[in-house]
Amino acid sequence: MILWANSIKAQRSRIGTLPFQQFLKSFASDSRLGFNYDAAFQGEIQKRKDTSTYRVLSNINHVINHQGPKAYTNDHRKVIDVWCSNDYLGMRMNNEISSAIHSFVDRYGVSSTGSRNIAGHNQVFVDLENSLANLHRKEACLVFNSGYVANDTTLATLAQKLPGCVFFSDELNHASMIQGIRNGKAAKVIFKHNDIQDLEEKLSRYPQKTPKVIAFESIYSMNGDIAPIESICRLAKQYGALTYLDEVHAVGMYGERGAGVTAALNISDQVDVITGSLAKSYSATGGYAAGSSAFVDFIRSFCPGFIYTSSLPPHDIAAALTSVEYLKSSDKERALQKSAVRKLKDALSDSGIPFLSNQSHIVPIMVGHPEYGRLISRDLIKDYNIYLHHINYPTVAKGTERLRVTPTPLHNDEAILKHFISALKELWKKYDLHGIDHWKANGFSVNDPCHFPLVA
Amino acid sequence: MILWANSIKAQRSRIGTLPFQQFLKSFASDSRLGFNYDAAFQGEIQKRKDTSTYRVLSNINHVINHQGPKAYTNDHRKVIDVWCSNDYLGMRMNNEISSAIHSFVDRYGVSSTGSRNIAGHNQVFVDLENSLANLHRKEACLVFNSGYVANDTTLATLAQKLPGCVFFSDELNHASMIQGIRNGKAAKVIFKHNDIQDLEEKLSRYPQKTPKVIAFESIYSMNGDIAPIESICRLAKQYGALTYLDEVHAVGMYGERGAGVTAALNISDQVDVITGSLAKSYSATGGYAAGSSAFVDFIRSFCPGFIYTSSLPPHDIAAALTSVEYLKSSDKERALQKSAVRKLKDALSDSGIPFLSNQSHIVPIMVGHPEYGRLISRDLIKDYNIYLHHINYPTVAKGTERLRVTPTPLHNDEAILKHFISALKELWKKYDLHGIDHWKANGFSVNDPCHFPLVA
Ligand SMILES: Cc1ncc(COP(=O)(O)O)c(C=O)c1O
Ligand SMILES: Cc1ncc(COP(=O)(O)O)c(C=O)c1O
Repeated sequence: MILWANSIKAQRSRIGTLPFQQFLKSFASDSRLGFNYDAAFQGEIQKRKDTSTYRVLSNINHVINHQGPKAYTNDHRKVIDVWCSNDYLGMRMNNEISSAIHSFVDRYGVSSTGSRNIAGHNQVFVDLENSLANLHRKEACLVFNSGYVANDTTLATLAQKLPGCVFFSDELNHASMIQGIRNGKAAKVIFKHNDIQDLEEKLSRYPQKTPKVIAFESIYSMNGDIAPIESICRLAKQYGALTYLDEVHAVGMYGERGAGVTAALNISDQVDVITGSLAKSYSATGGYAAGSSAFVDFIRSFCPGFIYTSSLPPHDIAAALTSVEYLKSSDKERALQKSAVRKLKDALSDSGIPFLSNQSHIVPIMVGHPEYGRLISRDLIKDYNIYLHHINYPTVAKGTERLRVTPTPLHNDEAILKHFISALKELWKKYDLHGIDHWKANGFSVNDPCHFPLVA
Repeated sequence: MILWANSIKAQRSRIGTLPFQQFLKSFASDSRLGFNYDAAFQGEIQKRKDTSTYRVLSNINHVINHQGPKAYTNDHRKVIDVWCSNDYLGMRMNNEISSAIHSFVDRYGVSSTGSRNIAGHNQVFVDLENSLANLHRKEACLVFNSGYVANDTTLATLAQKLPGCVFFSDELNHASMIQGIRNGKAAKVIFKHNDIQDLEEKLSRYPQKTPKVIAFESIYSMNGDIAPIESICRLAKQYGALTYLDEVHAVGMYGERGAGVTAALNISDQVDVITGSLAKSYSATGGYAAGSSAFVDFIRSFCPGFIYTSSLPPHDIAAALTSVEYLKSSDKERALQKSAVRKLKDALSDSGIPFLSNQSHIVPIMVGHPEYGRLISRDLIKDYNIYLHHINYPTVAKGTERLRVTPTPLHNDEAILKHFISALKELWKKYDLHGIDHWKANGFSVNDPCHFPLVA
């Protein structure tokens, strides 16, 4: 090993001599010799602007000293209704969670002090992992810094360590799974969204002995539709594949104890790996993967996204644990959420505003054009004090641009709903947007009556 | 777009029929048809066990109701001294940070409610990014969920968007940079650690116009040695490369206002991109990349690891902001840290215990064998109530296994230091470990007098 020998003093004194410093400065202010990096960055950004897909971050300060789904913008006097929060169950204001944070900060300080391997971990990490393993009726669970990291590093590590593994990935899978499979550099086969026939046809091309991973979601984030989990698991057994199911948009909300769609269908034991986020219905931060003891010991031992990073502070893990345990026993939030969703879907249908049919809490209102999506979001906040971000390509396919609405227990208020619906009606008129019939004529299933078969 | 048509009810009723359920169960309990996944996972784990590189997580509960670097294990009566914390400046116990967390939780609730693009962000995100841009005297900054994600997704995105880009990566770069470059799938050239000649030779093989990124660290995590930043920047200008510098182990601790090694050398303007972690000296969570406005707008617009993930809760961002601002003005922690490092290095040299020479706060005590590292860590906690995790391959090269010691302001206590040194002396004897001469004879630079040229 060669350790760099020059002392820093020498560096410092060299740059202390003025002519040389000026010489360096001249480079810095000049346009760069060779490749022009900033111009390249600006070029990429311009492409986004040209296609109305440039993103602008909004200043939205959720507050808790108001009833309802309220926030203020950077103008602190402007109080708005938020209709696109992933705080699906309104747990952001839960007193048990905030108490847990307060007490952990006061007892353990504000930081985890390092990675779990080197710095060790507070007992609360183990408690959370046990609680989540128990939730999904799996042998073990590992917590990551986010659901994104959980999917990315776990799938990439599976790809690298299972010899010759082939990944079967639903075409609408979330970016975190796409990245993980891509980063693992294994063979990848994309199957048509929720299409069992297509999946089977593709699985059958590979020998039984070839390791295979089927990666899919229980509730798809942008459509809110639900995968044919049981059929996929049946195919997996038949063709010798591992099932990897992202329940990020289901945990906390479906099934007994909020254990997700697999729990609602009573088929948790049929799925090999379940991943979730602690930042959506659980209103904390972090993500996890649950599965067999061997699987969890494997990812713990090999995932770089777990090993080489500081763990979350104990207070955030305590928040997650409190939330998971709370939602194991409280059904109130789940019931209030579904009632708000039902009210919204009914009101939209009455008003002729098109939304994709599904059996979940995600209400995708169809706009169908990136520029109108942007204008509606702009008008909503400007003229109606409503925050609802539009969803454009590449997050959804071109032509299916939408407003992704997620009513929470706080959205049961009649006045808030009425105001929202009348704003949408006015904007649909203003921009002359397509109604229900147009989407039906184009083969989309829209505005079916609200139906929650996964909820008791 | 095809939306899955079968209703969930149908799935549920199918699995309700007992024979079919039993049929499924038989698969689940049987060894899998085809590839045996759990056996593959166990095989990988066994390889780790066979080479003494299997990792065991320790239960270390840092507490704040004790003076000093104290924690307890899962046996709550056992209070231990921690010598390997990345809470480098002891900010874990800082009252301003904990107050910020308390007040943000009480005002804004416990969650960010989603990704920054869709859910928007609390003003505190903007404030933190401005504070960090100002710290590094850069035009802009973007905060990620961790330093790991900052490096991984930024480097991968640069690789994908700069046409034909070649990455020049120091051979000792952190896993997060290695993964990012790997995931970007661009051409990669590894240069010898801190070796300017080697880097120049490699840069010179490519045309001036080819985009190039030089990725390196200011202080290397495992050696504690410092890069020849100024020389690397000079080469970068000469060969038209972008400089990407990880200051994770320097920010908060070196340079005026804790702005890192580049600030100490007064060459912040020579480096294009600076990345840091908020989870080490700042004792919060998260990471960031700072650079030109065009660069930051570019990564904000394209990095999947930024776009497709829930942002950190506002209270954690408030914690980070409070800490960064606090350490801009307070020099006390930096001075106390350096004094503790000096005391430790002097005491180690007096006792003949070998550590790698460097000019930083990281004290790598050399063991040179994975099994002895494990045994020493075990004995330290069992017999001496000291927690110090060993570092083995693959985190460091085989044969250079070590104890990575990081004295903090809390380690100035004479009794704690004395106890630590006498424990090490006994264990060096017990396991008959190599002393200073052995490492010198093998070309390592060890046990130089403590010297902090980067600190005023
Ligand atoms: C389906 C899906 N999986 C994973 C994630 C990532 O989870 P997290 O927000 O915890 O990073 C998201 C959204 O962010 C998601 O929609
Ligand atoms: C050099 C280096 N860069 C980046 C990271 C990642 O930072 P974080 O812990 O915030 O993920 C680490 C350590 O974890 C590191 O040592």
